[in-house]
Amino acid sequence: MRPQIVLFGDSITEQSFRSGGWGAALADTYSRKADVLVRGYGGYNTRWALFLLHHIFASEDKSPPLATTIFFGANDAALLGRNSERQHVPVEEYSDNLRKIVQHLQACSPTMKILLITPPPVDEEGRMKYARSIYGKNAVKLPERTNEGAGVYAKQCMELAKDMGISSIDLWSKMQETEGWQKTFLSDGLHLTPEGNAIVHEEVVRVFSETGLSADNMPYDFPHHSNIDGKNPEKAFQVQCS
Amino acid sequence: MRPQIVLFGDSITEQSFRSGGWGAALADTYSRKADVLVRGYGGYNTRWALFLLHHIFASEDKSPPLATTIFFGANDAALLGRNSERQHVPVEEYSDNLRKIVQHLQACSPTMKILLITPPPVDEEGRMKYARSIYGKNAVKLPERTNEGAGVYAKQCMELAKDMGISSIDLWSKMQETEGWQKTFLSDGLHLTPEGNAIVHEEVVRVFSETGLSADNMPYDFPHHSNIDGKNPEKAFQVQCS
Repeated sequence: MRPQIVLFGDSITEQSFRSGGWGAALADTYSRKADVLVRGYGGYNTRWALFLLHHIFASEDKSPPLATTIFFGANDAALLGRNSERQHVPVEEYSDNLRKIVQHLQACSPTMKILLITPPPVDEEGRMKYARSIYGKNAVKLPERTNEGAGVYAKQCMELAKDMGISSIDLWSKMQETEGWQKTFLSDGLHLTPEGNAIVHEEVVRVFSETGLSADNMPYDFPHHSNIDGKNPEKAFQVQCS
Repeated sequence: MRPQIVLFGDSITEQSFRSGGWGAALADTYSRKADVLVRGYGGYNTRWALFLLHHIFASEDKSPPLATTIFFGANDAALLGRNSERQHVPVEEYSDNLRKIVQHLQACSPTMKILLITPPPVDEEGRMKYARSIYGKNAVKLPERTNEGAGVYAKQCMELAKDMGISSIDLWSKMQETEGWQKTFLSDGLHLTPEGNAIVHEEVVRVFSETGLSADNMPYDFPHHSNIDGKNPEKAFQVQCS
């Protein structure tokens, strides 16, 4: 049984296996060491994610994931009275929902590495442009998400992680450290460019490594081909496959 | 339990989750429908793959993969007396080994879709350039693989697929239909560029669709977010998650 790393989140997770995506890059980093499974649900907020939680992470699973990323908030932070208000979840409830998710994962496996990722920043200009491309003249004149609003959810996510003593990535702050983050990291003001995906990949690898889950220290599942004697291949496999 | 698609092969499979890779693209195609697991082993030939077979595909597995791609031959076709002769497997044995792999998978699950993929063509000039970059002046003056040689293995692979009545992709022929395939599809004369990966992805999706495994016809694991009523989310989940 190869260990599993599960990516649980919204569209930014669902799309993470597109070209240049952070999920695919993570699968490559843990190649022959762990399987990376996507459990990304476009458009979902934490309220809806709770309906899936016990289906995706079954308490009775005898081989729970080695690690799980929890990456929600971009939809919870959609504002009331604007285009995406259906997805809005108040920030207190967002925090409560994240706590429930973490507690459930901890109950599934006390040793699971759990990593909370904040929503990315929002480029409001990018969102308006996207809305006009979808709704034309009917687009609401105000963006459905604001960067300030997303920041409130990001802060809450970081506080929860600290409170519960689990790992976290403040993606909202991290991306804004780079000048021009709006277009460099975001394709439509919210979703990630390959450069934005690269940041998430780097950060996840960094945090996993810091918490003892470095791919470099994990064993290959089977012998590297250079260790196989062409004339006596059995030998290499007797050591690692008996 | 989400169905699984397993990619079993050599480095061309192992590297398929790099940026632009065919494995990652396949995972994206089957997003929320099937998990794509990589079982790629750089440098492996079919002789060595047999040592792994029963570990990766256990007969007693109650949830065997829905589909498996078998993509070997690039290393078996390495020539005797040249740099990579350690990896050489005679073509008759290559065919026998592939047959054993297919038979084992069929024993694991009589309904599993099995897809044989031939080795890609070889750009000998690209291989020589690669050898010089590794071995410098000590590089053997002849390429360690030839396109003609790879073609013999590809033909054998296609004949076996026909003989056993299973699906196949003649990648060796398919790629050579495009003028300039040597540099367009191959990065070092053997491994795939993003364009080469795209061909593999397209072909695998096409064959899977033809054999009743079209992602379009497979159900989403959970409701699409647009079907969730913001004021009464339970309803959507009662239908699909009860």
